[in-house]
Amino acid sequence: MNSSIRVAVNGYGVIGKRVADAVRLQDDMILTGVADVVTDYRIQAVLERGISLYAATPEALSAMRGAGLSPAGTLDELVAASDLVVDCTPKRVAAGNRERYLAAGRKAIFQGGESHELTGFSFIASLNYADAIGRDLVRVVSCNTTALGRVVGALHRAGLVRHARAVLFRRGTDAWESHLNAPLNTVVPETRTPSHQGPDLQTILPELDIVTMAARGPFDLGHVHFTMVETSRPVAVDEVLSVLRDAPRVAFVRSDDGIAAQNSIVELMRDLGRPRGDLWEVAIWEDALAVRPDGGEIYLVYHVPNEAIVIPETIDAIRGMAGFEPDAARSMARTDASLGIRRRFGAMPRPAEATSA
Amino acid sequence: MNSSIRVAVNGYGVIGKRVADAVRLQDDMILTGVADVVTDYRIQAVLERGISLYAATPEALSAMRGAGLSPAGTLDELVAASDLVVDCTPKRVAAGNRERYLAAGRKAIFQGGESHELTGFSFIASLNYADAIGRDLVRVVSCNTTALGRVVGALHRAGLVRHARAVLFRRGTDAWESHLNAPLNTVVPETRTPSHQGPDLQTILPELDIVTMAARGPFDLGHVHFTMVETSRPVAVDEVLSVLRDAPRVAFVRSDDGIAAQNSIVELMRDLGRPRGDLWEVAIWEDALAVRPDGGEIYLVYHVPNEAIVIPETIDAIRGMAGFEPDAARSMARTDASLGIRRRFGAMPRPAEATSA
Amino acid sequence: MNSSIRVAVNGYGVIGKRVADAVRLQDDMILTGVADVVTDYRIQAVLERGISLYAATPEALSAMRGAGLSPAGTLDELVAASDLVVDCTPKRVAAGNRERYLAAGRKAIFQGGESHELTGFSFIASLNYADAIGRDLVRVVSCNTTALGRVVGALHRAGLVRHARAVLFRRGTDAWESHLNAPLNTVVPETRTPSHQGPDLQTILPELDIVTMAARGPFDLGHVHFTMVETSRPVAVDEVLSVLRDAPRVAFVRSDDGIAAQNSIVELMRDLGRPRGDLWEVAIWEDALAVRPDGGEIYLVYHVPNEAIVIPETIDAIRGMAGFEPDAARSMARTDASLGIRRRFGAMPRPAEATSA
Amino acid sequence: MNSSIRVAVNGYGVIGKRVADAVRLQDDMILTGVADVVTDYRIQAVLERGISLYAATPEALSAMRGAGLSPAGTLDELVAASDLVVDCTPKRVAAGNRERYLAAGRKAIFQGGESHELTGFSFIASLNYADAIGRDLVRVVSCNTTALGRVVGALHRAGLVRHARAVLFRRGTDAWESHLNAPLNTVVPETRTPSHQGPDLQTILPELDIVTMAARGPFDLGHVHFTMVETSRPVAVDEVLSVLRDAPRVAFVRSDDGIAAQNSIVELMRDLGRPRGDLWEVAIWEDALAVRPDGGEIYLVYHVPNEAIVIPETIDAIRGMAGFEPDAARSMARTDASLGIRRRFGAMPRPAEATSA
Repeated sequence: MNSSIRVAVNGYGVIGKRVADAVRLQDDMILTGVADVVTDYRIQAVLERGISLYAATPEALSAMRGAGLSPAGTLDELVAASDLVVDCTPKRVAAGNRERYLAAGRKAIFQGGESHELTGFSFIASLNYADAIGRDLVRVVSCNTTALGRVVGALHRAGLVRHARAVLFRRGTDAWESHLNAPLNTVVPETRTPSHQGPDLQTILPELDIVTMAARGPFDLGHVHFTMVETSRPVAVDEVLSVLRDAPRVAFVRSDDGIAAQNSIVELMRDLGRPRGDLWEVAIWEDALAVRPDGGEIYLVYHVPNEAIVIPETIDAIRGMAGFEPDAARSMARTDASLGIRRRFGAMPRPAEATSA
Repeated sequence: MNSSIRVAVNGYGVIGKRVADAVRLQDDMILTGVADVVTDYRIQAVLERGISLYAATPEALSAMRGAGLSPAGTLDELVAASDLVVDCTPKRVAAGNRERYLAAGRKAIFQGGESHELTGFSFIASLNYADAIGRDLVRVVSCNTTALGRVVGALHRAGLVRHARAVLFRRGTDAWESHLNAPLNTVVPETRTPSHQGPDLQTILPELDIVTMAARGPFDLGHVHFTMVETSRPVAVDEVLSVLRDAPRVAFVRSDDGIAAQNSIVELMRDLGRPRGDLWEVAIWEDALAVRPDGGEIYLVYHVPNEAIVIPETIDAIRGMAGFEPDAARSMARTDASLGIRRRFGAMPRPAEATSA
Repeated sequence: MNSSIRVAVNGYGVIGKRVADAVRLQDDMILTGVADVVTDYRIQAVLERGISLYAATPEALSAMRGAGLSPAGTLDELVAASDLVVDCTPKRVAAGNRERYLAAGRKAIFQGGESHELTGFSFIASLNYADAIGRDLVRVVSCNTTALGRVVGALHRAGLVRHARAVLFRRGTDAWESHLNAPLNTVVPETRTPSHQGPDLQTILPELDIVTMAARGPFDLGHVHFTMVETSRPVAVDEVLSVLRDAPRVAFVRSDDGIAAQNSIVELMRDLGRPRGDLWEVAIWEDALAVRPDGGEIYLVYHVPNEAIVIPETIDAIRGMAGFEPDAARSMARTDASLGIRRRFGAMPRPAEATSA
Repeated sequence: MNSSIRVAVNGYGVIGKRVADAVRLQDDMILTGVADVVTDYRIQAVLERGISLYAATPEALSAMRGAGLSPAGTLDELVAASDLVVDCTPKRVAAGNRERYLAAGRKAIFQGGESHELTGFSFIASLNYADAIGRDLVRVVSCNTTALGRVVGALHRAGLVRHARAVLFRRGTDAWESHLNAPLNTVVPETRTPSHQGPDLQTILPELDIVTMAARGPFDLGHVHFTMVETSRPVAVDEVLSVLRDAPRVAFVRSDDGIAAQNSIVELMRDLGRPRGDLWEVAIWEDALAVRPDGGEIYLVYHVPNEAIVIPETIDAIRGMAGFEPDAARSMARTDASLGIRRRFGAMPRPAEATSA
């Protein structure tokens, strides 16, 4: 490999477009191009950013040429010109691409919609960066699993978790397609109980005792988790806050600072000039955080920004797989600096005042 | 008291109008009238049902007369003509009425929005009917607490509960006023953690170990609870199903029977000819019910119909307070028969197939 | 034909189940049964009402038997046992059934989702009842076209319309399936401009000059029309009110009576004990009705209850096709009496106070 | 005045924060500071941008100091240090500030929520820039009126409008406060018919014949207008497109390019890197634009971005009032260049294919 890793993005959707932008912010990566099958407005951002556009299928090649989009070539050509492919195609498509990348001798990252078995390795930067080093195939876990990994995983690494439970209120649809297949004025419970996110995190932390339940609702700004962590020993709120303040990509917000709901968080990200109004951090409501009087259980509520949360993990996965940076903390620090990741949002950073239950 | 208890309803809103209708279905009760302060479309149902309308305030008396509504009198007159008042007025109003009822020598029921201290006694029919007998003041607990009481309380009475946890996804507003102050496309977490519903149930079951978390969301069909019950001894799914099948005012639905979300439940209630499409039962998704492989925890998802769930409890409270029926089961059976309460909904009643986790 | 017309309903969905119930309320009709393909919770109402259930396809016959639903037979058997079939199947299915009904020598009614050409005759009771008499095939037009026909058609029959324009805010989905494919937090404009509803009404009133535009939004309680009627001569508000008060199946509501939005209307229907909370009338906001100072244009806002509005039209179509009642007004009066159709809703029927612009 | 006009922003809400950012992009303006009364998360963007924060009231001064926000001074001090104040305070507050600004000898701009009478002059840059030159008080009209002015006003200036009608489907709430007082699953019609936006535009174009109707719905991404323009002479689609292509701050989108709804527009703005994902242009659906076959009426559907549409007008108002630029086109060109305003969005700019009705 060169001094910069050449990265292709296959699938320019919710995740793919954010990965492409983030790759371009890294000084050790080069974005070789993006591949897709559509020819509509979603491609405008590719063109205006001066990113090379490739056709993911022969049909797309014809369609793109017909639409005057001047594709730079085919997916195979893009793969050949790259060291690593971040596959951000839809569920049914991605698994079929595995052999294509391997046959071309290229590394590949898949997203959390794919099965653990597709790569044999699932990834959250703060939990198992070292194991990704030099790997050919990595799966960056889903937004919900990533959030659980950052929060519950951090408490687990601090030796505080005996058993964790989480209820996930999932967004009903992605905002860009919320005119199509959203729920309206109804909650749709998941009938697979426990839901798959707990076991999914155990592909990374097999020793972690965790169970999750889930439902979808009529909103599209992100998920919200209600997490109850039985502790392995009595803890105080301050210790929990201390662990979470050190946890990578976790940021505090406060309801009494006006950040009372998901829309407040999104508004603040827009105000702070974040690209697309994105939040890459898990946003924990500090003033909803509580510990049972006997110290035996921690109660947490946090917002999971499903569009952007896995972007920093994907960047670290690229760096680790390329073998460019052996140290997890240094890779995460580079990634976080490039994106401007923070520990706290709001006008009034204050000492912890989280209530004891 | 007479052979029929004379019942007044003060406040003809979401709860009050349903209480009034249910009272009229009982053969041991007489609805003396309803009192309210409004003069708009909400009063049409009072008039068309031939219910006597009273003015809850002097101003309302004038306004009603001005609007040609021919009120039968004042609240004090209604109280005087009744043995018991069911107070369904808004939060800030109800507490102030306590002395009025007592001074008139009348019994009174308050709703769950009021504090336990207002009456010193909180009520769920299946849990403490006997203690309501002959009482002057009773508080029927809120919709969420009632649901927890029916479900978790039943498991508790069966000796199965070591510790219960529930996450409550609350409706954002009442449907009749959803044009006013609803949330839109956002989740609003409650910052009081744990939320008050757990302790509220402990006013009835002080020995029950339970904790709740809560949030509001952009929907108005009811609440959804995700409940995790650590068991006091290993249990199997069948035992849980058996206990809940016997639990009063709990009914099973199945997602694989097409009842996949809250709106499906509401549609079925409309199809079954229920008044206002009401559901009085807690609707448990049978095919989402699961037990941990070691039998140590039960996972439950259920829909809480916030408009109607407390109606049967209120009827039982009236009957108990009047001393007309000493036996809880017999009172509940009368109430349930009058309303048509059921154990299961759907086209295909089947043997339990709930999954083991 | 007998003294009662034997009516079958094919397709027990939003429209079909309401048609079935309404047929059973008529003293000159007999419901022979309903046919469908599903075996899930939607069938519970069929069973509990004691309606004969038929399988619409061979596969459905097997599935129903397998589910223990005891179907009474096949669709062909149901058709054979009936004089007339009301086809309420989905769009792609209905057109294919035309030949089946004709081959069996049976009359048939199709819904507004089908093309005018399928039957060659489109129907709104108040506009062309006489032309339906004795017909074999009738199409009851869609909810939006029916509403336009009742309102604009009534003004047209009164000689008041020079040119009508309407903007239709359509509900995003049917409530029973609002967990599936609704829009969320977005408005989806129709790009066919003008939209098809204007021309659709012209299949009944070819001489009417009308144009419509449309969009879908994130709500499921019904549609709202904003209608602007250029008048053929100067009119006053009182004359407009007078015409609309006489228009069949049009009812007034008032925002200053508390009926400020669609949800208020639905709440009132629930309170009034309407089955399924249904509204069969177009609900015109009386206090939003206005006329331009020069009398040259009428401005109207009304709620269109998409689930139930076509039910009375369907009943009249059946009666007319059967030749049982030659007079439109008498048929409509019978239908309206059976359903309890009204001219006004709210607590305070008042003399017209609609504003002059 | 100096070579740069010193601009203060009073009220750092939806409009104020965008005005502040836009002022800082102009090379002939200096942002002296912003004043507000809140101390919560909404102030974080002020602090991080290095904008001077002033307290709008004595109470706010204390609160800001108490919160450690280090306000630069009071509103009076901010006004004194500025040549012009853009008042973006809420409705009830703004009118009361008029005398304060005049007494201090400062020019002031008010927003469209205020009455025309407050300033005696209402403003849309493309319609009456010249009349704003040198004025002390200007009212930038509301988002809806601005959109009507840009679109219908452009057609009017081209001599094409005989009579215009528009139905406005208004957003239910501002996104940042959508957890507070939104409508949910309901449409709320405005009972003032015609609604005020038509007359409001006539404060700028008194000779324009226009009427509007309006309703609010459960969405927060912006408004949608359905506009029907009777023409003064027969026109073809191409002429309409030509006029609107030249109209300032109007941009075309196409549904067949994937921009099928409001959320698609917002997604594209985010993808294009617009600050806050803002749209300053009216977005007209090109493939929904139609003309009646006889050329007598134009049909238009467009999205009105209520948060940002008035920002360019406000900048032009500042420049005109300061007397820095006598020419409307040159001022608008400067403003538009600073913001990056466009004529078209989407991947496939194509020749007009709008349908003829």
